[in-house]
Amino acid sequence: MNPIQALADRIESQNLWGKEITIARNEYVKMADTTDTNLYYIVSGSLHIFVDDGEKQHTIRLGYQDNFIASLDSFISEQPSELYIQAIKKCQLKVITKAAFMEMVHSDADLFAVWFSLLEQMIFQQMEREKDLLIASPQERYRRVWERSPQLFQHIPNKYIASYLRMTPETLSRIKKKPT
Amino acid sequence: MNPIQALADRIESQNLWGKEITIARNEYVKMADTTDTNLYYIVSGSLHIFVDDGEKQHTIRLGYQDNFIASLDSFISEQPSELYIQAIKKCQLKVITKAAFMEMVHSDADLFAVWFSLLEQMIFQQMEREKDLLIASPQERYRRVWERSPQLFQHIPNKYIASYLRMTPETLSRIKKKPT
Repeated sequence: MNPIQALADRIESQNLWGKEITIARNEYVKMADTTDTNLYYIVSGSLHIFVDDGEKQHTIRLGYQDNFIASLDSFISEQPSELYIQAIKKCQLKVITKAAFMEMVHSDADLFAVWFSLLEQMIFQQMEREKDLLIASPQERYRRVWERSPQLFQHIPNKYIASYLRMTPETLSRIKKKPT
Repeated sequence: MNPIQALADRIESQNLWGKEITIARNEYVKMADTTDTNLYYIVSGSLHIFVDDGEKQHTIRLGYQDNFIASLDSFISEQPSELYIQAIKKCQLKVITKAAFMEMVHSDADLFAVWFSLLEQMIFQQMEREKDLLIASPQERYRRVWERSPQLFQHIPNKYIASYLRMTPETLSRIKKKPT
């Protein structure tokens, strides 16, 4: 079983979800300069995490069904962060607090190992993303992300994927029609 | 005690360093397309990790005295990675293999907690870096890194810091003379 599903199933069976919320399209789960240490499990819908540099919004993470999303900087530091979390499509989210989550993973060595390996995967994925963004060719950036996460393109509208890949929506459309 | 020092001291006291190596200025610890799962403790000198996109080298990490450096992607995945690790100044490095390191941290719950919190810090720092690079103003990118890591500027020549901050060495010199 994949580690995300293992964690979600355990939270479910131990009845640790704090609440279940519905977020309308374009509504915010988190605003900049706030602290949010919750983990959100996406039952349905999709979201993005973005930074606003005063000129435009830069999407840095995308989340969709059967995955967790969180403002990881705030989750780790328990301090305010610049990140926004916004629904791209109407979302159904299950929420667990950091306190409840950490208590759960610390209560069971196997579960802690799952969490630990997920943290390692996050570091690995962040490094892959850092390398992706250094590649000058938009075609090549598209190709790398498509090979790693083809399901992204089924769940997320072009506009947000384009921002995530640091290209215009027009460039992304052109590449999708003629990838090479 | 800081987590890095705690880990280095324990490796020392358990006599787990595999070897100690000297790397001349500009020599490589790791080349692209190789697997390197070692952790390197920097006794003296400085290094950078870079990606070569075919057109130029992009420095993505900097390491100096009393810190660890590693090709974390390769360390985690145990697969080849595109990263280069190169000495900026002549280095004295102590080396521990992943196997020896993981055996050590798994043998002691307190030490494992140190390693775990270091992984969390890495995720946090990677996110800070991702946000830094989205900031269009070179002055502001400089300011954020200077506030977080002032010691970087004592150990690393301008040329590499400029690449790390995605600006030309000339822009960095100008900003350092007149930060605001």
